[in-house]
Amino acid sequence: MSQIFEQLMPYLEKHMALQTALALFDWDDATLAPKEAGEQTAKVIGILAEEDFLCLTNPEVKKILEKFEAKEGEEKEQAIIRKIKKSLRKTEAIPKEEKRAYAELQSKSQKAWQKAKKENDFSIFAPYLKEIIAYNKKFASYGSTKEQTGYDVLLDNYEETFPVEVLDIFFDKLKKELIPLLQKIQKQPQIEDSFLHQKYEIEKQKEFNRFLAEYIGFNFNRGVMAESEHPFTTSWHNHDVRITTHYYEENLASAIFSTIHESGHAIYEQGIEDQYTQTILGEGASCGIHESQSRFMENMIGRSRAFWVPIYGKLVELFPKQLKEVSLDQFVAAINRVQADEIRTEADELTYCLHIMVRYELEKLMINGEVEVEELPRLWNEKYQEYLGITPENDTVGILQDVHWSMGSMGYFPSYALGNAFAAQIYAKMQKEINVEEELSKGNIKAIREFLHQHVHQYGAFKEAREILKETTKEEFNPDYFIIYLKEKYKKLYGIS
Amino acid sequence: MSQIFEQLMPYLEKHMALQTALALFDWDDATLAPKEAGEQTAKVIGILAEEDFLCLTNPEVKKILEKFEAKEGEEKEQAIIRKIKKSLRKTEAIPKEEKRAYAELQSKSQKAWQKAKKENDFSIFAPYLKEIIAYNKKFASYGSTKEQTGYDVLLDNYEETFPVEVLDIFFDKLKKELIPLLQKIQKQPQIEDSFLHQKYEIEKQKEFNRFLAEYIGFNFNRGVMAESEHPFTTSWHNHDVRITTHYYEENLASAIFSTIHESGHAIYEQGIEDQYTQTILGEGASCGIHESQSRFMENMIGRSRAFWVPIYGKLVELFPKQLKEVSLDQFVAAINRVQADEIRTEADELTYCLHIMVRYELEKLMINGEVEVEELPRLWNEKYQEYLGITPENDTVGILQDVHWSMGSMGYFPSYALGNAFAAQIYAKMQKEINVEEELSKGNIKAIREFLHQHVHQYGAFKEAREILKETTKEEFNPDYFIIYLKEKYKKLYGIS
Repeated sequence: MSQIFEQLMPYLEKHMALQTALALFDWDDATLAPKEAGEQTAKVIGILAEEDFLCLTNPEVKKILEKFEAKEGEEKEQAIIRKIKKSLRKTEAIPKEEKRAYAELQSKSQKAWQKAKKENDFSIFAPYLKEIIAYNKKFASYGSTKEQTGYDVLLDNYEETFPVEVLDIFFDKLKKELIPLLQKIQKQPQIEDSFLHQKYEIEKQKEFNRFLAEYIGFNFNRGVMAESEHPFTTSWHNHDVRITTHYYEENLASAIFSTIHESGHAIYEQGIEDQYTQTILGEGASCGIHESQSRFMENMIGRSRAFWVPIYGKLVELFPKQLKEVSLDQFVAAINRVQADEIRTEADELTYCLHIMVRYELEKLMINGEVEVEELPRLWNEKYQEYLGITPENDTVGILQDVHWSMGSMGYFPSYALGNAFAAQIYAKMQKEINVEEELSKGNIKAIREFLHQHVHQYGAFKEAREILKETTKEEFNPDYFIIYLKEKYKKLYGIS
Repeated sequence: MSQIFEQLMPYLEKHMALQTALALFDWDDATLAPKEAGEQTAKVIGILAEEDFLCLTNPEVKKILEKFEAKEGEEKEQAIIRKIKKSLRKTEAIPKEEKRAYAELQSKSQKAWQKAKKENDFSIFAPYLKEIIAYNKKFASYGSTKEQTGYDVLLDNYEETFPVEVLDIFFDKLKKELIPLLQKIQKQPQIEDSFLHQKYEIEKQKEFNRFLAEYIGFNFNRGVMAESEHPFTTSWHNHDVRITTHYYEENLASAIFSTIHESGHAIYEQGIEDQYTQTILGEGASCGIHESQSRFMENMIGRSRAFWVPIYGKLVELFPKQLKEVSLDQFVAAINRVQADEIRTEADELTYCLHIMVRYELEKLMINGEVEVEELPRLWNEKYQEYLGITPENDTVGILQDVHWSMGSMGYFPSYALGNAFAAQIYAKMQKEINVEEELSKGNIKAIREFLHQHVHQYGAFKEAREILKETTKEEFNPDYFIIYLKEKYKKLYGIS
């Protein structure tokens, strides 16, 4: 370890420990904490978060970082320093008072959003959204560089090197190719899936989902599975990674695919090398790459026929009354059914990115100052009509459905769509090296997991997203793979020539 | 708030937040954390603990405390300052390097103890125990004052103002009164309790125990109940208090009485006033007072006939096959059965303090340097024979049974016995004000809980143990109440004149 890096270590270690504690409080809050604990526990969290902030913005850290120049030390140290420098530059670009005011706004804004959503009244949330936008515009201007201005600065918080210029091309392709495909599908007879909505006993669902997580590779000796309102993955380090699922008695597929999705995230986290875990490289390379791993498991693997060949019998065994008349093919068709609907988180694989597109386009307008907040619900509905062929029944299931904007997260959504495209590109490459269908049919997911481990998981954030994508697939980001994948899959499923 | 106190606040707040985080990690480790997470999570805990240590031993804190003189500020501030000063004096009495070496020893010693216990081989643990004793003797000498030396210094860590002088009288009384009583009981026909050891389905036990916790007053809106190997109570603040139970399929009583016991602790913590919670007064007045609340609920209340009058029917309803032939009186007799046995944690109410007495006497010898470690197993067994009339089958169920010494906790055990005596003294006073039997028979535990809340719970550690005992019972500590209570109860139960 270089001497300068050694001076930095105590700060990095403290930051890691405080981040871990904060993650544990988050997990606990979502899975277990009692109803009335919020206020007092928030005080604890506030103090720890402040402590963490002070730790990394300590003038001593700055001094050390300034001494550390480009090519010094091991590659790993360089990557850590690069990441901290960037994060500090972003943090320090925003004046402290504005950050505090913004934190307060975020808290109030989320409450207003909850109320607005509950009462189906956008006007309750509108003034807060206005302020959120104003702050984000300001933050974008503070964070501007020669290469990056406006919305690009916000996008960069979640996915580096995927600015508007790249995303516009990406979404334009999706628009051109997927909307006509969706329209064709909508003219076909719909796939029967009502059997997925019978009563499925929660206890048996739990048993199956635990089996499923393990089956695809979640290591329970290094992980925990619990329940929460909204499924998520979190981790303290590569030996303690946690996922949640939410069970619905009348929706068998919901828990199954959230378990596979979160397991995809979790296997990534469990696979990060020991040398990176508990450093700031001990996380996913980017939001998009993380999402590529979860969506890959959920869609490319979890919704494939071959995946279910060895395990559908187990599901039928658990639920004979509900599934004994349902063939494997009927089941696989049902879990791939396309249905343009209002809610993003329930969207199928094909329409999902169209939901994201609506949000991307509106965010761009907001940050560019090209839209009034009051116009947003109308625009939202028009875009849903144009892209998905439906108009949301009301704002609760329309523009108020997602928490992100109320939390101040602007620029996040596109990484969801990118994740899908990354996954398809990686899948295309994998298929050249592995007979995925054959392996899955034999119940051998290991070969697939090892490919991902070798190319993606082990590195954590040591390599950047573009680097991982390029080294894995031997080419630059190419959204065509995603479009080809979807067109092939859904044309076949719906018998479109 | 006084100005000086205000300067202290940031340190106190940070200490509180770090302590809360550490408690959360402990809870998580005991209830949920995956098997292989230990090493990495220990690193996090180590950093947070060190941070906490540095926070309170910050020279700035010392300066502020020196400025703060006796009668300044509100009473609450004075109590806080008193407590910190004492804790700092104790902490700083021990040189930093010794503290670090001791922490390492504790960790190694616990592992050695686990191995020794598993392999029934005291010699594995002996060298560590030797070192633990040497350190404790040294720490006792560092912490000595004019009033306090030797073992008294260690006792004071858990229970102030209950030195050897007081404890000797206490245990002598127990010895004189309880051993003959036990011997008489052992000549009586034994109470039948085999029905408590049939198969009791864990899921139904869980249902009943949850009901039970709520019935005696555990507030689930401010608390969580989970499972762990060894039952315990912990809390972050008065709005988040957590208890665990351990279920055994063939032991109905075990979970029931650990639930009542831990609920007794938890109701205390939930009842601490808002003004004290999240300060260093937001805990029990002492170990003994805390234990008095759990033992009171477990024994005086939970093992009384009146307690079961309104709820025994519910238990029979859940387990009709096992209990339909068992009358209320048979059940109550069984849960009060006296059985001199090897294991402290499974001891009945009468023999429990005799188990403690063995440990107290041996600790005294160890700290006074009046015994060689090698002699301890023999002495242990002789004392068990003398006091309980049994000789442990081996060291695993003898001297190796408890974790305490391996953790370096010396001086802790007596507070368990004191807790029982405090409980009996408080109970005697309560009975003068409340018809406890009548209230319990009506299912009204509220009256009892309110008495405890008014006299004990609300104050947290704002008042000291002796003060609470005296103000509640209008007299100084008097162990006679405990002896009278036990003699009356067990003479009646076993028909001894």
